[in-house]
Amino acid sequence: MTQEVIDYLKENEEQLLQKLHTFLEIESVSTDASKKQEMEKAVDFLTGYLRDIGFTTVERKDTGGHPLVYAEWTGAEDAPTALFYGHYDVQPADPYDLWDSAPFKPTIRDGKIFARGASDDKGQVFMHLAVFEAYLKTQGSLPINVKLVIEGEEEIGSGNLYPFLENNQELLKADFSLISDSGMVDKGIPTILYGLKGFTGLEVTLTGPNRDLHSGLYGGAVKNPAMALAQLLAGMKNEDEEITVPGFHDGIEELSVGERKLMNAAPGENFVSTTGVPEEAPEKGFTAKEHTMARPTFEVNGIFGGYQGEGTKTIIPSKATAKITCRLVPGQDPTHVQDALVAYIEEHAPKGVHVDIKREALSAKAYKVDPNHPLLEKAAESYSAAFGRETVFVRLGGSIPVVETIDSLFGIPVVLLGFGTPEDNLHSPNESFPLEHFSKGMEVLATYYHDVKNV
Amino acid sequence: MTQEVIDYLKENEEQLLQKLHTFLEIESVSTDASKKQEMEKAVDFLTGYLRDIGFTTVERKDTGGHPLVYAEWTGAEDAPTALFYGHYDVQPADPYDLWDSAPFKPTIRDGKIFARGASDDKGQVFMHLAVFEAYLKTQGSLPINVKLVIEGEEEIGSGNLYPFLENNQELLKADFSLISDSGMVDKGIPTILYGLKGFTGLEVTLTGPNRDLHSGLYGGAVKNPAMALAQLLAGMKNEDEEITVPGFHDGIEELSVGERKLMNAAPGENFVSTTGVPEEAPEKGFTAKEHTMARPTFEVNGIFGGYQGEGTKTIIPSKATAKITCRLVPGQDPTHVQDALVAYIEEHAPKGVHVDIKREALSAKAYKVDPNHPLLEKAAESYSAAFGRETVFVRLGGSIPVVETIDSLFGIPVVLLGFGTPEDNLHSPNESFPLEHFSKGMEVLATYYHDVKNV
Ligand SMILES: [Zn+2]
Ligand SMILES: [Zn+2]
Repeated sequence: MTQEVIDYLKENEEQLLQKLHTFLEIESVSTDASKKQEMEKAVDFLTGYLRDIGFTTVERKDTGGHPLVYAEWTGAEDAPTALFYGHYDVQPADPYDLWDSAPFKPTIRDGKIFARGASDDKGQVFMHLAVFEAYLKTQGSLPINVKLVIEGEEEIGSGNLYPFLENNQELLKADFSLISDSGMVDKGIPTILYGLKGFTGLEVTLTGPNRDLHSGLYGGAVKNPAMALAQLLAGMKNEDEEITVPGFHDGIEELSVGERKLMNAAPGENFVSTTGVPEEAPEKGFTAKEHTMARPTFEVNGIFGGYQGEGTKTIIPSKATAKITCRLVPGQDPTHVQDALVAYIEEHAPKGVHVDIKREALSAKAYKVDPNHPLLEKAAESYSAAFGRETVFVRLGGSIPVVETIDSLFGIPVVLLGFGTPEDNLHSPNESFPLEHFSKGMEVLATYYHDVKNV
Repeated sequence: MTQEVIDYLKENEEQLLQKLHTFLEIESVSTDASKKQEMEKAVDFLTGYLRDIGFTTVERKDTGGHPLVYAEWTGAEDAPTALFYGHYDVQPADPYDLWDSAPFKPTIRDGKIFARGASDDKGQVFMHLAVFEAYLKTQGSLPINVKLVIEGEEEIGSGNLYPFLENNQELLKADFSLISDSGMVDKGIPTILYGLKGFTGLEVTLTGPNRDLHSGLYGGAVKNPAMALAQLLAGMKNEDEEITVPGFHDGIEELSVGERKLMNAAPGENFVSTTGVPEEAPEKGFTAKEHTMARPTFEVNGIFGGYQGEGTKTIIPSKATAKITCRLVPGQDPTHVQDALVAYIEEHAPKGVHVDIKREALSAKAYKVDPNHPLLEKAAESYSAAFGRETVFVRLGGSIPVVETIDSLFGIPVVLLGFGTPEDNLHSPNESFPLEHFSKGMEVLATYYHDVKNV
């Protein structure tokens, strides 16, 4: 029966692409206040499509911000329920003159669709809808129950999504969650993303004198805040790239030999050639792949104080600031980590300066699902079959806040079925998505929705 | 005979102040290209005055920039020759609306003359000229021979003064040098400045990746240049404020017990209350006074890299920069110190970053004259007599490049006869100079020019 679905997708590829083009033509830029009508057009497109193919509940939900689409098809008795999440809003397309074809006039060349949202995330949302269409048209039903949440504010922080999820836990009840808003390690290489990092941060400002001082008259009398900041930061990470803040690592599970193997086996970029650094700099005892995927980080995102212009200005700056964020791994509690950082800074800030700490309000726990979980194994099988290659398992150094929210609110596994590629130019001019990933991806999804039924 | 001179100065104070007003009314702002005519007016004022009172050689010297006034009176046989240095240019006066009276309309209130240049340096130059007038009018001669160099580019770096000094060493030959372009530690407290610091510096930039990177995707793979910079800087000074760069202190003479006593006895500001720092931060084993006056410093004048805006941006910065300058003490060679800094940075820069060092082109040796030198003892006597208080001896944490130039070109002692006060608002709105320092200062000079004859 899956074959009929796959055949339908092949036979109707032209028509489906046409429909995807219609979706991509809508300028649903969530940051742009003048595009309110376009946001509504995207909602109309989604709700219309879902009603056409037979979804039973299809609703436009007011959120206070851009509306959200909620829909469900729950006719599969004794079958699990999947909570699908995606977003219909896109990044702004400017600067327009850097695009080789207009961002909202989808164009096919070199085997790719070029358009804003082609990969992130309209293209990937559409693949699921097309698979639903294929099932409902050929079988009259879906293999499992499906609840869809497609928001319009992902690119502006999902401020109204989180309350919606929190306030509708009964409605959204499901056995697992599905998201296609990520990518593969490389074109054509099936990739299962089974972990994401958490996040916390803070900003620290050290103030010495109440104004910039003449370095001749005051040098030797007062502490230099820029030097104080350097001394403070240098105490928080050593030259082996080990974070030395007590309590920072509390709760971290050790990386298993098996996981380290998985990570190191995954294809990945050569960091030296892609970034121009003279050499990699992972934590002692770990490879760069292991560190990016599965070890916590402590990064100074910005540092500033005193004179920044041309030439020399012989001052002692009044203050110096460092912006710091950390990526966290499973087992770490963001609040506990933030507390540990604050405690360290308060205890170790050099004498002679005032300390001011701004805690970053956003934070997130890391997310991880067992790479051997049957939901993931089935996904890997579908990927490998469609792409004709073994699936690799990776963890991501970044965070996808909605994943962590679903995890903590619903306690269900989140399966990340990404089909993008590193060359998709997300958030940049000339965003694109390979046609091959479109057709093979739909094949993956058709198989997965079927096979996952008995997990 | 000195009494006649002092009487002349008292009796003619009104007339002399009137003449000083005329000098201060000239808008000789050296940075301001539109003020070329005013610069010429100041030169005319000086050359006219000097000719009027009987200087034998009075010349306007072209320099390529603003002209310089050279004059001499050399009729004192068997007497020493003093090389006097001063400047007729002034800082810009803007913002004008912060002045309580117009900057170029000298106004007397609260016992002070308010005008741009009242203290720095027209007022102090004028005091010498007035004393010369008094001698020549009452005695027909000066007690010693005098050569005057009064430049018009001090506030813009004296770029044309140094070649003039270098190229006219025979002409400018003298036994000692006199400069009145500094101040006293406080109003009414006679102060002998007997040492200045030298100067060197550099700018170091550490570059990691060739662009800002996503901290989630690359954190753990590459060295963070801002952290690398913090680690590098923290290695150069310890928490006891000791500079830990090998070779930095080479050649420094130890501070004698006697000098430490002199310095600590000098009145000075309470650094905590004047700057708002929670506590002083001198090098271990030294007081703040000792460190500012007589120990070398290493100051980060500016530090910057990565994101400086509001909120959070989760990047690994491509680069981070520190601007560093050091104040040097007698015995240190600026080039040797700069080399030591460069060597340290090249050897200790963390792995994973490229190092780029810009050496500061300007540098200067420290200057110091024995506080027991007879030239200084005589000066102290004159000060103490006129102001009715004991003279204090201090060294300055800052640099006066012309002093170091005269020292190294001519190898003669430089006597710094400063009459300014900490409240003079140099380089700021409402610059002023106390009338009492004008009259007592001229008394000091009248006595000094006489007494120094037999040193
Ligand atoms: Zn997205
Ligand atoms: Zn000056």
